[in-house]
Amino acid sequence: MGNILDSYNNIEQISKMSYNELEQFSEEIRRFLIEKVSKTGGHLASNLGVVELTLSLYKVFDFNIDKLIWDVGHQSYVHKILTGRKDQFDTLRMYGGLSGFPKRSESKYDVFDTGHSSTSISAGIGIARARDILKDNYHVISIIGDGALTGGMALEALNDVGFRKTKMIVILNDNAMSISSNVGGLSVYLGQLRADPNYTRIKKTVHNKLEKSDIGKNIASSMHKIKDGIKNFVIPGMLFENMGLKYFGPVDGHNLKELITVIEAAKNIEGPSIIHVKTIKGKGFRFAEENPNKFHGIDPFNRLTGEVSNKKSETYSNVFGETIVKLAEKDDKIVAVTAAMPDGTSLTNFAKRFPERFFDVGIAEEHAVTMCAGIATCGLKPVFAVYSTFLQRAYDQVLHDVCIQELPVVFAIDRGGIVGNDGETHQGIFDISYLNTIPNMTIMSPKCTKELSYMLAWAIDKNYPIAIRYPRGGDNPSFSLEPLDKFVLGKWEELNSEGEIAIIAVGRMVQTALEVQEILKELEIKTKIISTTFIKPIDTELLDCVIESNMKIITIEDNILIGGLGSTVTQYVNSKNKAIEVLSFGYKDKYICHGDVDTLYRINGLDSNSIARVISESIKEK
Amino acid sequence: MGNILDSYNNIEQISKMSYNELEQFSEEIRRFLIEKVSKTGGHLASNLGVVELTLSLYKVFDFNIDKLIWDVGHQSYVHKILTGRKDQFDTLRMYGGLSGFPKRSESKYDVFDTGHSSTSISAGIGIARARDILKDNYHVISIIGDGALTGGMALEALNDVGFRKTKMIVILNDNAMSISSNVGGLSVYLGQLRADPNYTRIKKTVHNKLEKSDIGKNIASSMHKIKDGIKNFVIPGMLFENMGLKYFGPVDGHNLKELITVIEAAKNIEGPSIIHVKTIKGKGFRFAEENPNKFHGIDPFNRLTGEVSNKKSETYSNVFGETIVKLAEKDDKIVAVTAAMPDGTSLTNFAKRFPERFFDVGIAEEHAVTMCAGIATCGLKPVFAVYSTFLQRAYDQVLHDVCIQELPVVFAIDRGGIVGNDGETHQGIFDISYLNTIPNMTIMSPKCTKELSYMLAWAIDKNYPIAIRYPRGGDNPSFSLEPLDKFVLGKWEELNSEGEIAIIAVGRMVQTALEVQEILKELEIKTKIISTTFIKPIDTELLDCVIESNMKIITIEDNILIGGLGSTVTQYVNSKNKAIEVLSFGYKDKYICHGDVDTLYRINGLDSNSIARVISESIKEK
Repeated sequence: MGNILDSYNNIEQISKMSYNELEQFSEEIRRFLIEKVSKTGGHLASNLGVVELTLSLYKVFDFNIDKLIWDVGHQSYVHKILTGRKDQFDTLRMYGGLSGFPKRSESKYDVFDTGHSSTSISAGIGIARARDILKDNYHVISIIGDGALTGGMALEALNDVGFRKTKMIVILNDNAMSISSNVGGLSVYLGQLRADPNYTRIKKTVHNKLEKSDIGKNIASSMHKIKDGIKNFVIPGMLFENMGLKYFGPVDGHNLKELITVIEAAKNIEGPSIIHVKTIKGKGFRFAEENPNKFHGIDPFNRLTGEVSNKKSETYSNVFGETIVKLAEKDDKIVAVTAAMPDGTSLTNFAKRFPERFFDVGIAEEHAVTMCAGIATCGLKPVFAVYSTFLQRAYDQVLHDVCIQELPVVFAIDRGGIVGNDGETHQGIFDISYLNTIPNMTIMSPKCTKELSYMLAWAIDKNYPIAIRYPRGGDNPSFSLEPLDKFVLGKWEELNSEGEIAIIAVGRMVQTALEVQEILKELEIKTKIISTTFIKPIDTELLDCVIESNMKIITIEDNILIGGLGSTVTQYVNSKNKAIEVLSFGYKDKYICHGDVDTLYRINGLDSNSIARVISESIKEK
Repeated sequence: MGNILDSYNNIEQISKMSYNELEQFSEEIRRFLIEKVSKTGGHLASNLGVVELTLSLYKVFDFNIDKLIWDVGHQSYVHKILTGRKDQFDTLRMYGGLSGFPKRSESKYDVFDTGHSSTSISAGIGIARARDILKDNYHVISIIGDGALTGGMALEALNDVGFRKTKMIVILNDNAMSISSNVGGLSVYLGQLRADPNYTRIKKTVHNKLEKSDIGKNIASSMHKIKDGIKNFVIPGMLFENMGLKYFGPVDGHNLKELITVIEAAKNIEGPSIIHVKTIKGKGFRFAEENPNKFHGIDPFNRLTGEVSNKKSETYSNVFGETIVKLAEKDDKIVAVTAAMPDGTSLTNFAKRFPERFFDVGIAEEHAVTMCAGIATCGLKPVFAVYSTFLQRAYDQVLHDVCIQELPVVFAIDRGGIVGNDGETHQGIFDISYLNTIPNMTIMSPKCTKELSYMLAWAIDKNYPIAIRYPRGGDNPSFSLEPLDKFVLGKWEELNSEGEIAIIAVGRMVQTALEVQEILKELEIKTKIISTTFIKPIDTELLDCVIESNMKIITIEDNILIGGLGSTVTQYVNSKNKAIEVLSFGYKDKYICHGDVDTLYRINGLDSNSIARVISESIKEK
């Protein structure tokens, strides 16, 4: 890969490197990242943006003692290269391979596991406080992106950090992007700071003058004449200083000298500080600099053209994105909301077509949900498009602000079920269970992509909260399913009428159920497939028929077994006082690691072969 | 009550009142509040603090059209008096009576239901955006306390409001208190703003001068000489202005003229603004001003002495507070954390005794949980004391930051189950279900107050996450239960050995189960009582014995039936392929309104008589 990277094997080497060597090392790391990620896929642009920053931190601190805490963590690849994991990059995000996020189980240099946004300052201040209680002596550095800073818990943490004056360093990695472009008053403010070329000179002058005499008071009167437009110009970072943190910056995040100088300065002061580092997402790889969004998380690509090789078939996300635009053309009451994921949730076209009805609120799921509740009180039809795993952040807001008032908010929940390579922190396997606990909530799931479009149209016209949950990816190409285009609240769909056992499947698991049906047919076991359509409320009428006919009942859901559909069905069957066994397939009570989706289905027993085997064995036992 | 209040009957009257009349009206409302709340109990101090503020808003705006959104909402009593509900104050917070919070079902002037903190800006901007989309024309005013402003979602919302420039007014009701004293960098900052007597004069001068000439640039150079200490003095509210909101204030919240003038000014500008109002919690009632904390939410009291009449017996909260101090005396690794509830969770003594090991992070449950996770990585033993209903806010942090890493954080979950008068938004009836969904989480519940102390000691010594859930109030005085003082993970306790049916009860519901046992004994039905001790994991060994003996199984929990203990037990029993009915008692799939706890138990079928009746009937049916 290069002279330095080839011979690199421990972090002590970095402290001995000259600026020239560090610069060369940066370039070698960039080439390494581009080569590896072009083959495995993964997060590229954010990692290219933090090469110099990461090296500078390793130059200034001793991470055998000091603690570095990442936020989100998909920008930790450079850190992983530096801490003994460069040879594992061929297995990046594969089952059994290197995780795409920091993991304490992977390295002692990974101080805190992460995945969701905005956690690093909270974790960091916890560690810094523990250090002080234990009278230990080390530095704590939390890195956070400007996007992640729009997350409420990061702001809660900043507020707390500034109050108690515990020493820690917050590195604001400001690339003016979260995954897509940033939003929010804070980002405008940061933009003003970034744009100020005079800052460093000014700061120096101020400092020199103030050290010479206590002239502050003498100029106080002239200060009052300040004008709105120049306010931010005066003391960059005053917002942070107002919260109680010493502000350094903005620093050019690709200038090693500047970075190291400022980080050294922050290291040596008392109390909490924030270093504002300007980085370029995708730095050093033309295609990624031009299109950082595309190269945020990317499939394997061609290094020379920047093109992604594998074409994608129609996904649930696409269908959602196309449908909501079509619906909004006819219905001007539809409003779409995202928490910093316009692309991921396929709202980009909606945003272009209906900018006045589109709101990207930043990485702020809590605010997004309650804002939707407010919108719904006025007779509009808000749709919050969100990944299953991120809606966890707004559990209370769904329960407390939307569902108590029964407000007609539609939750378009993408990435329900296993998502694959992102692992534990991102699997959408809890949503059915946590949404099930919420009164007044209706939960639906389409059995195929086409059905999603009808379901969305139906849900948007209702006057109560509805969650529609759908998976990453698209349909199983082996099936051509007829979508339901009409729905009755709580009514399920029977895909065939005869059978000795009833397989009740949720959403895309209907496709798995059909595979199971094929396999069992060969064993001369006849099955009746039921698509739940509604996960809550359940179809008690149909279930009563199934119970009456004494069929064995199977449930299949791409969700944890605790509190899921299988649990609802089992409780209902039991309440009917019948000795009918309900055999439920879903995820056991544990987190599910990273890997490709098919492998994860298989090792968790949720592929059609495993399910068919367990069913046939359970019948034999009888 | 007074001349004005007696004859008051609609909000139009306020716009016609003179300052003198408004002042008299304020005093009459204060006397009314003190008299009424002294009899019913309720939230007093916060309401006394907003009398003039509420009247001023009604003077300036027309709430037949304009929208007023409260935060938390326990300070909405004055608003309720003004909007046709003064005659219902004798039924305040009673079953079927006036709610202690805004409720859309109660009045058209209640624009948005509330209860939890920090939601009003999100709801307000949602309404303001809907207004603009619908091309309506009215004002939107969100009130938020300085305490609630430490909540992340309020900061997420501020960031969003400042960005899009939608017109709305945020009223910052700053009494320098949340429920207890405030914490956080923001509160220090607000304190500096409050303390500045020159502000109004300065602002006026600045304004006049700047309007005359564009001298801003000329003084820019001298501006650089600013000194840290006087920074905040220069532009009050710059923190908010940096986020994109026009700042007005600070205003004396008990001076009607000043209030009305500034509110008028904010009404007439474009874009979003924030009015910083200084109020005194408990204003006008000596005992409440001296002890706003005690008079935040209070039981009936003597108006002349300020003393609360009914004495409280030992509560679970007290036992927690005493135990954690005792444990911390012997173990210097114990750290206690609260999200703005040191009194409510009984951590006041701990805070006094071990200030360096105590952290009040503000109304910031998300940050609190992840900070605890950080602390736990360093080998300390963090205990987060929190109300059940507020932990909903941190569902994702428990799942994502604590439990994936299996970090030994102890969650001391107070107010599990029905809490009574606070109603829908505060009932702690979801915790067992949402915690059940989280892998690696252990859930315990003590059957009596004494058992809580042993349980806490046991949990703190473990190296994995544990939630201990206990109710508001204390023990049923009719029983003297022997506490368990030793625990084995997942092992339940049999309170008696013989019986034809097994009653498996959670926590204090064991006391209800014992009452049920007495009633059924008279009907010659013998019951075996099992205290779950551990809600997760369940005691499958004991359950296997119960199943083997073909006993009918009853579960009782003070939680929703969906996803609760009954659900876990039913799934387990069903998996054993046995025709055993599990009869589960708990709350149905709906929110539970306000009222006294006994009434709520009764109407929800969770009192011992109802349970015994249903059990005996189900046996007869057989």
